[in-house]
Amino acid sequence: MKRWEDNEWSSSMEIKIDLTYAMAEKLGDDRGISPAEIDQLTDRITSIHQQLTEGRKSGRLGFYELPYNDTAGILKTAKMIRNEFKNLVVLGIGGSALGTIAIQNALNGPFRGSREDHVNVFVTDNVDPDYFGSLLETLDIKETCFLVISKSGTTAETMSQFMVVRDLVKKSGGENALSRQIFAITDPEKGCLREIALEEKYTILTIPPAVGGRFSVLSPVGLLPAAVMGVDIDEMLAGARHIDKKCADPRLWENPAYTLGAVYYLADRKKGQNILVFMPYSNRLYSIADWLRQLIAESLGKKYSLDGKEIFVGPTPIKALGTTDQHSQLQLYMEGPFNKMITFFRVQSFDREVSIPVAFQGNDALNYLSGKDLGTLINAEQTATAIALAQNGRANITVTVPSINPFTIGQIFFLFEVTTVFMGSLYNINPLDQPGVEESKKNTYAIMGRKGYEQRAKEISSELTTSSNFIL
Amino acid sequence: MKRWEDNEWSSSMEIKIDLTYAMAEKLGDDRGISPAEIDQLTDRITSIHQQLTEGRKSGRLGFYELPYNDTAGILKTAKMIRNEFKNLVVLGIGGSALGTIAIQNALNGPFRGSREDHVNVFVTDNVDPDYFGSLLETLDIKETCFLVISKSGTTAETMSQFMVVRDLVKKSGGENALSRQIFAITDPEKGCLREIALEEKYTILTIPPAVGGRFSVLSPVGLLPAAVMGVDIDEMLAGARHIDKKCADPRLWENPAYTLGAVYYLADRKKGQNILVFMPYSNRLYSIADWLRQLIAESLGKKYSLDGKEIFVGPTPIKALGTTDQHSQLQLYMEGPFNKMITFFRVQSFDREVSIPVAFQGNDALNYLSGKDLGTLINAEQTATAIALAQNGRANITVTVPSINPFTIGQIFFLFEVTTVFMGSLYNINPLDQPGVEESKKNTYAIMGRKGYEQRAKEISSELTTSSNFIL
Repeated sequence: MKRWEDNEWSSSMEIKIDLTYAMAEKLGDDRGISPAEIDQLTDRITSIHQQLTEGRKSGRLGFYELPYNDTAGILKTAKMIRNEFKNLVVLGIGGSALGTIAIQNALNGPFRGSREDHVNVFVTDNVDPDYFGSLLETLDIKETCFLVISKSGTTAETMSQFMVVRDLVKKSGGENALSRQIFAITDPEKGCLREIALEEKYTILTIPPAVGGRFSVLSPVGLLPAAVMGVDIDEMLAGARHIDKKCADPRLWENPAYTLGAVYYLADRKKGQNILVFMPYSNRLYSIADWLRQLIAESLGKKYSLDGKEIFVGPTPIKALGTTDQHSQLQLYMEGPFNKMITFFRVQSFDREVSIPVAFQGNDALNYLSGKDLGTLINAEQTATAIALAQNGRANITVTVPSINPFTIGQIFFLFEVTTVFMGSLYNINPLDQPGVEESKKNTYAIMGRKGYEQRAKEISSELTTSSNFIL
Repeated sequence: MKRWEDNEWSSSMEIKIDLTYAMAEKLGDDRGISPAEIDQLTDRITSIHQQLTEGRKSGRLGFYELPYNDTAGILKTAKMIRNEFKNLVVLGIGGSALGTIAIQNALNGPFRGSREDHVNVFVTDNVDPDYFGSLLETLDIKETCFLVISKSGTTAETMSQFMVVRDLVKKSGGENALSRQIFAITDPEKGCLREIALEEKYTILTIPPAVGGRFSVLSPVGLLPAAVMGVDIDEMLAGARHIDKKCADPRLWENPAYTLGAVYYLADRKKGQNILVFMPYSNRLYSIADWLRQLIAESLGKKYSLDGKEIFVGPTPIKALGTTDQHSQLQLYMEGPFNKMITFFRVQSFDREVSIPVAFQGNDALNYLSGKDLGTLINAEQTATAIALAQNGRANITVTVPSINPFTIGQIFFLFEVTTVFMGSLYNINPLDQPGVEESKKNTYAIMGRKGYEQRAKEISSELTTSSNFIL
């Protein structure tokens, strides 16, 4: 790891990670991590690096290769959508939605949805009837296309939405409208959505089988909607490839994903910092925190170790927004339990400059703001908060993004994907599965009367009918 | 506490709290709370009840009386704004914004912002220049009024925004436009914003001095924007008064705020459930979780007990959205550490019905959805998830809201305010202050060059200039 030279860095488009306030040098040994503690992981990391490299080569860790895929087919479909439709509604949930929402908020901009030359993109990741119903009411169905995303094709929420919109499209444009207005992204070989899409001749794009939902943002799942928004997806993949070079380095201190992952892991296991707060000082980056929440929670929250022992691990990722949450969460972060590791995202150069006019010169409580700009203020507050937290023994990391653009967003996605699978190996769990959500799905099937779930329906029926003494 | 009778309840507009899956009877003694453990708090609760009653009478706990205030002045100002303007922009942060955002999302509805007969309300609670700048660009300033909310009048973020819009208003309409287009809510007697508002003749509404920002939603802070949106604010206050009657009951088991507060407190202190997840199965209620995050984090996250001992307490409130986060967070909640207490919000009757058409009858993976409606599905998923969590030893509570309307939202606000101050007494801390945010503010002043902070600027300058070895 080389010493940081400000001038050298600021001329590039590289994201930068500052671990200073997570380290023992600043926080003391109880709260901070020493380089020696990280170095102790060297042997494990060497072996983990081999496993990851092997998983990449064998195709098991499919996400690694996504930045190297050709985008011609995606761009062609996106161009067609942009030519023919005013609105694109994405029907998806979890990994089929969060990457797109993150890209939209970061790169499509707030309040830009209605620009004349743009397709309006809506990502509908819930079955709340008030929410979904009111969106559908505002849309001219004939000018709208729908992108259904489900790898298995059985996701109850997405398929329900699909059944609703399929009916609307058919009613508004007839049977033939279906193949024009509905697009599907699903498994390349099997599944219920694939069968319907083939039968009804929708345009189909595919998710590589070895890429799980939460690792799919750089596949057509995230790239097609991004391209429809007008985002330069090749630049996003270039950003991912750029950081992939660093994240492929076997040397711990030269590999940002490994160093960052080691710090998060040690913070949880050695320092009791089992809550990972992601706090961008940027509204546009706030939804990246939601994408990170899924990536980390689903990948690392596990009951069993790889050798089958009950371990119940996983840091809890939470999101916060600077400066907003300085007026909501900071009090707790500063004075509450020492169970948090905060990761700030900071934007070095915003797209817009908003100057605070010179006014109230005689007023000491306001005149320090006169003539400054809001970008300076928000970044001053981030620095001020990071320092104050560290001085109170609160671990924090700052990720600086030189500016918000496809290249830097691509870096963030890829960096945290590698960091997460790497952490999976440190925790000795499988970061690619999510067995814990099955029980809830089966209960839903039972309550909804799905065939084959009659026995479970009986089993849980007592829960549904008994009155309780603990209702207020 | 009486036994719940479904028929009796469903005909009323009362919210209902089901603690069943937080109790030892379901979860066992390690993870669940026994009635005996709650009963052990009886003496403390009797004494706390006396303190709260006294604090209410003396006016120290000012929020208790807000539902009894006259709304005529607020309604008059709101009517004037509705008659004269197309847009209202609220400039505020933390407690000056979160209640309004919660009300807007719950009661003004998604995708309803642009209805012709409505004033568009925007709450701008950050100084991100990309965010604030792009909003300002979309507005016709002449048709827009601005509501500046700051109790002290020195909040850097809000006052910066104020300085920016004041200049815009002046440039677009001249000096005289200021008193017509700018409204202020601030302290009734002192402060910088009050001085300016008087000087420049803005319409002024006030926050009672004994009501802190995070307890101010039922004051003009939340009520004026709500009334501008067309929300029936008298109905919201009626809901608060309705639940106030129950929350004023000295008997633990008859008082929902005390029972709920005792459960949260014991969950944290006795069962290690120090993360409070708030997970509405309703997009419209999702922002209530943000309001709760501030209320709980700032009120209960404290370094010192009332007798001056270092205790570093406070549960960490986090937000999640059902069903969406079943595909993001549920894996962790189900299989990760046993450190969470989840509170679901469930809507018994949604405003809209969206039916899933009958289709794909031959397909077992889809036909159970045919002919159902989305409200049934989302509520089945909530039940399914609550049961699955309980069966895995995961504590959870369900708050059922009969329907989303001003009366039920008023109940939620007031219930959780009382619950929070009550919990403050259980934790033996002051729930009304927030001393921990001062350091960060002072650092900001120092970095921004405010007069009087030269010494601090020197102290932290080494932090700002030193290169570090821990930058990746």
